[in-house]
Amino acid sequence: MKPNEGRSRVVIEELKPEIDGGRHAAKRIAGDRMRITAAIYTDGHDHVAARLMYRPASEKVWRYAEFRELGNDVWEADFLADSIGAWTYTVQAWVDHFGTWVHDLHKRIDAQEKPAAAPATVFDLPGGAEQNEAINPADENTVAIQDLPGGMTPATRRFMTSNTPQSDVALAFRTGAILLDQASARAREGDARTLKGTASSLRYLAERNSPYYDFPLNEDAIALCLQYPDLNFATVYERELPLWVDRERARFSSWYEFFPRSAGFVAGEHGTLRDAAARLPEVAAMGFNVVYFPPIHPIGTAFRKGKNNSVVAEPGDVGSPWAIGNSDGGHKAILRELGTFADFAALMQAAQANNIEVALDVAFQCAPEHPWVRDHPDWFKIRPDGTIQYAENPPKKYQDIYPINFESNDWRALWQELYSVFAFWIDKGVRIFRVDNPHTKAIPFWEWCIAEVRKTHPEVIFLAEAFTRPHVMYGLAKIGYTQSYTYFSWRTEKKELTDYITEITTTPVADFFRPNLWPNTPDILPGFLQTELRTAFAQRVVLAATLGASYGVYGPAFELCDHLPAKPGSEEYLDSEKYQLRIWNRDDPNSLAPLLTALNRIRNTYAALQTNETLRFHAVDNDKLIAYSKSDGDHTVLTIVNLDPGAPQAGWTELDLLALGVPFTGAYEVEDLLTGAKYPWNGSHNYVALDPEKSVAHILLLRRATLSESLAGESTED
Amino acid sequence: MKPNEGRSRVVIEELKPEIDGGRHAAKRIAGDRMRITAAIYTDGHDHVAARLMYRPASEKVWRYAEFRELGNDVWEADFLADSIGAWTYTVQAWVDHFGTWVHDLHKRIDAQEKPAAAPATVFDLPGGAEQNEAINPADENTVAIQDLPGGMTPATRRFMTSNTPQSDVALAFRTGAILLDQASARAREGDARTLKGTASSLRYLAERNSPYYDFPLNEDAIALCLQYPDLNFATVYERELPLWVDRERARFSSWYEFFPRSAGFVAGEHGTLRDAAARLPEVAAMGFNVVYFPPIHPIGTAFRKGKNNSVVAEPGDVGSPWAIGNSDGGHKAILRELGTFADFAALMQAAQANNIEVALDVAFQCAPEHPWVRDHPDWFKIRPDGTIQYAENPPKKYQDIYPINFESNDWRALWQELYSVFAFWIDKGVRIFRVDNPHTKAIPFWEWCIAEVRKTHPEVIFLAEAFTRPHVMYGLAKIGYTQSYTYFSWRTEKKELTDYITEITTTPVADFFRPNLWPNTPDILPGFLQTELRTAFAQRVVLAATLGASYGVYGPAFELCDHLPAKPGSEEYLDSEKYQLRIWNRDDPNSLAPLLTALNRIRNTYAALQTNETLRFHAVDNDKLIAYSKSDGDHTVLTIVNLDPGAPQAGWTELDLLALGVPFTGAYEVEDLLTGAKYPWNGSHNYVALDPEKSVAHILLLRRATLSESLAGESTED
Repeated sequence: MKPNEGRSRVVIEELKPEIDGGRHAAKRIAGDRMRITAAIYTDGHDHVAARLMYRPASEKVWRYAEFRELGNDVWEADFLADSIGAWTYTVQAWVDHFGTWVHDLHKRIDAQEKPAAAPATVFDLPGGAEQNEAINPADENTVAIQDLPGGMTPATRRFMTSNTPQSDVALAFRTGAILLDQASARAREGDARTLKGTASSLRYLAERNSPYYDFPLNEDAIALCLQYPDLNFATVYERELPLWVDRERARFSSWYEFFPRSAGFVAGEHGTLRDAAARLPEVAAMGFNVVYFPPIHPIGTAFRKGKNNSVVAEPGDVGSPWAIGNSDGGHKAILRELGTFADFAALMQAAQANNIEVALDVAFQCAPEHPWVRDHPDWFKIRPDGTIQYAENPPKKYQDIYPINFESNDWRALWQELYSVFAFWIDKGVRIFRVDNPHTKAIPFWEWCIAEVRKTHPEVIFLAEAFTRPHVMYGLAKIGYTQSYTYFSWRTEKKELTDYITEITTTPVADFFRPNLWPNTPDILPGFLQTELRTAFAQRVVLAATLGASYGVYGPAFELCDHLPAKPGSEEYLDSEKYQLRIWNRDDPNSLAPLLTALNRIRNTYAALQTNETLRFHAVDNDKLIAYSKSDGDHTVLTIVNLDPGAPQAGWTELDLLALGVPFTGAYEVEDLLTGAKYPWNGSHNYVALDPEKSVAHILLLRRATLSESLAGESTED
Repeated sequence: MKPNEGRSRVVIEELKPEIDGGRHAAKRIAGDRMRITAAIYTDGHDHVAARLMYRPASEKVWRYAEFRELGNDVWEADFLADSIGAWTYTVQAWVDHFGTWVHDLHKRIDAQEKPAAAPATVFDLPGGAEQNEAINPADENTVAIQDLPGGMTPATRRFMTSNTPQSDVALAFRTGAILLDQASARAREGDARTLKGTASSLRYLAERNSPYYDFPLNEDAIALCLQYPDLNFATVYERELPLWVDRERARFSSWYEFFPRSAGFVAGEHGTLRDAAARLPEVAAMGFNVVYFPPIHPIGTAFRKGKNNSVVAEPGDVGSPWAIGNSDGGHKAILRELGTFADFAALMQAAQANNIEVALDVAFQCAPEHPWVRDHPDWFKIRPDGTIQYAENPPKKYQDIYPINFESNDWRALWQELYSVFAFWIDKGVRIFRVDNPHTKAIPFWEWCIAEVRKTHPEVIFLAEAFTRPHVMYGLAKIGYTQSYTYFSWRTEKKELTDYITEITTTPVADFFRPNLWPNTPDILPGFLQTELRTAFAQRVVLAATLGASYGVYGPAFELCDHLPAKPGSEEYLDSEKYQLRIWNRDDPNSLAPLLTALNRIRNTYAALQTNETLRFHAVDNDKLIAYSKSDGDHTVLTIVNLDPGAPQAGWTELDLLALGVPFTGAYEVEDLLTGAKYPWNGSHNYVALDPEKSVAHILLLRRATLSESLAGESTED
């Protein structure tokens, strides 16, 4: 079977980014320049030309961007992704016959045998006009023809006996005239006239049949013709690839988690949404831009968990917020003790007033009294004895929770109802959702649900709490999750931090996966933080806030260095807020709030820390010191952290000066953004000593102004 | 838009090999086990199961192979590609509810509280049969129930008061019974009965409501149920991927090129196909399995090139065989001086008798008198003066050659005629084609043409002479070329050899690209061989024959170390056979024929050298010594070459013992297959000295028998 068009000679391959053969969308942020590379080639020595075709998915008409050749048949193009939502892109390429002709003509012209000097003379221009030829001062053997029509160069040529047979060059002029005529047939009216004029001039020159010609066309004439390529045999890449463009907060976010029920101001009293609203100014003052609340819905009573996850609740025990639903309602209701929808609206207003966004927790599981259980028992697994299957990981039983059965015959209605939970809270103003254990719900559901939400609300951000296997974590990111929790919580050694952070911030993973680094969560008190060393907490949050453009803390517990596990070997907190009210002494003089405030101030001030794209690790000759930098147009931030919370560590850096934009030799100044101290540094090797009692890290600013000065006369990357 | 089936919860990703999103076929050899890996996962903790679906493209019915999990959600399967031609494969995966149930049941059983000892007793079996329970000697607290129906284990359980509510285990038995019943509904009749029986037994056990159970099913019962999975919600990978299976010669081939017209036995007389046939026994005796002839067609007379590529031919000059076509015919005719089709048939018979295959050269370009020029001027480019465009690379002109215009409006007829050239020679018995400059012909044409040939002749092999840019070389391999020339001809240093050979023999490139290494060709006398040092030639052919499962030489010129270039800086031969007859003194005592013979003997004897899959480079502490090994089931061949043709070189090896299958400590013996010398070696570090005057290389055999002995008690890779 021959193809419909066998004359499409250009091959387009290796389009990047392309995730799983175009199955999934690459991710970018509005305002990013989206860079695409591709291998583009054809047979023989013909030139190829290519353009990127791209458009917001909502538009029909393609936009175009030019490709530049990088060498070895690899090309690149970019475009400004100037609005959030779905985009699509592909590549069109064709044999550039005119470009090939220009290239070959240059070689033909150069190869002419230069004739002996001859006197200047006069000849007729096509329009019948007559001009004096002026001697070209640069070469008195050539004669300039000024102001030829159609963008021709001040061509120079020689008049010899004209009885010689038509030269290769003259023949090439006639070929060029045909190409120009063809382009003119495709051109807009004014351009068409110009192209035709140029063609006529070429024919005129060819007819004069001179033994020597200079190159006849100027850059404008060439550029004009290249604007009207023959696309009849153009190749279009076989797939249109998807791109998803998010708003800025998808890339740069600082999360603070707290339990509204522990937000109260009176010991022993159940906190409310009003209390939570009252806490927002201090969270905002610490510089966070997202505040995240565990579920605020009615909590089941059957099999309610008691304090410290006891299987029997005492009277007055408040239960786990993740055991959602009772006779007051389910995922679209608010726990009575927390307040009303009016209170929630007030909370949202307070957030807006404090310039902080509210993230709600979506945990798709039901307490036994959840309305869904009553109305849709077929959305759950029914056991042979007629009871509904509770959550379990045999032999462990979680009888306070019913997992949803995504193989329900009624899956369409189920999906619709789950989607409606998001729609409900979006209607109440929420634009960020932290999704609980998304990896235990069907992945095709998430793909549909996230797309469905984004149809009307492309600004919504989904954070996947998926501390699960790498392929599953990445899979959830591919099908639409905006951000993801990571294994950072357990990576504490230099090598494993370097390897892991490199993996998740480097393409191709970085094209679809956006890490959000958490030193702790209500579910995870890592072994490294089960220590009385406040410096361990400080170290971990410096790492999170400077390695990750997005990071978060389970706030009060973190600030106050809550470090006692429920039992030895457990990562659960003792007296966990998950099962009881807690009172946090926010005035504790040992609180890490000042450090969090400083970190967020630095993050908010220096755009370098608001992206992972420029992250580079630098060597230090001490395994307890880790160094890495991020840069933007104006500044480089170089962070060096003492990974040993218990002892001072010192060493010599071996900086990648090119990545830093630092001169290869000579002095420069670094300023510690945590302390304000300034240090005179020199070249790649600098001595660093960090006593955790004083400071767990240097966060060093290298100003471009400083660099430019010291770079005078030096080579730099940029 | 919800999907048609939202309950297909398994994700299948990263299927390998997959070339350009399935656009191109992976390549294997008949008899290979085709290994496929994929990432396969689902939500939650449910188990998944998967099977590879594969079939020859000519068959409708899928065959299946089981996947094995390698860990971290990566799975592998393989199948025997037992016939040449097109195959297709994809993956099907599903949630394995029965497997999950078995896994969970084990955990439930293990978690039971072990009751106190109780007396053995007797109970009724489902069929009403009654058996004595025997005390299990291993644990006198358990009681064995022998010979339960349906593949149940000799289950042991305990009888206590039976008033406790139904236990989790009993409930799980009832769930299992449902799964078994469902499987029985999908099963063949006999199996269905067995599965139903097992289900009944589980229900029977559940009804006894014992407080303690042992695991009730044996491996057979489990395996039987797993044979009948519920595929209603199975996921099938979104693409069916192509595989092309070639015959053995596609991977392992030793090519010898010579010009029939120089095969004559009388100086100055034009050689014939009969002469070429007479030369075959000596080529076969050297151990080559492919003999390749430059074009044997009529040669143009207009603008015929003279000796040493002179633009003016003298009377009697024979012209270039690549300037195809004159009034005697074109690509389907034989040059009159070479003989007749009867002579060609005799040549083919001689080849068969000598167990060597004939490869013909297909060069799609025409001399001005080629019949296509007369009959189809529209298959060529017409210049504005009405003449046909000859080949040129301005300012160079090749007026003896007209290139084909693949943008001809008549491209369909053109393609058909070009295809018919292959069909014509296939009809004459040819099964291997070396294609001249395929990168100057339209790539879509090749893709169609090769596929068209293979529809009826899947055994045909195409070698691409594409010394062009890497993407183009790889592109031609992707669209179907069986083998390709490479840049080996110019890679002479250890690092560049190591890097380049690694690139072209390692996946993903090795999945579609099969290198054929040539130290020289009639077009390429590399600078490295422009030397009087015979050792340079020896070194290069040892490298080619041991690095490449396929290699070739432009024979007589190579054997006789023809090393004079047409002019300084040129890679053309002086007095090149391309433009004149040559007489080769095949009896020259300095001929490299004995070395070629030895190399081919080794290649033909040791299968390790017949594939590139196992190639590993080993370190030597001298940059002039390169070492690498290949292995098969029985032998490892370790080659060490002195890259300096002018001086002895010595050094210490640092062998990758795991790759060699050599013991980490202790002695072993290596045998030089070139000299027969044996050396006692020990561990990784061994001293090697190569004096090129004596030998440019060691080709060392490590016998598995030897290894096994010395490996006794050692760990090895296999």
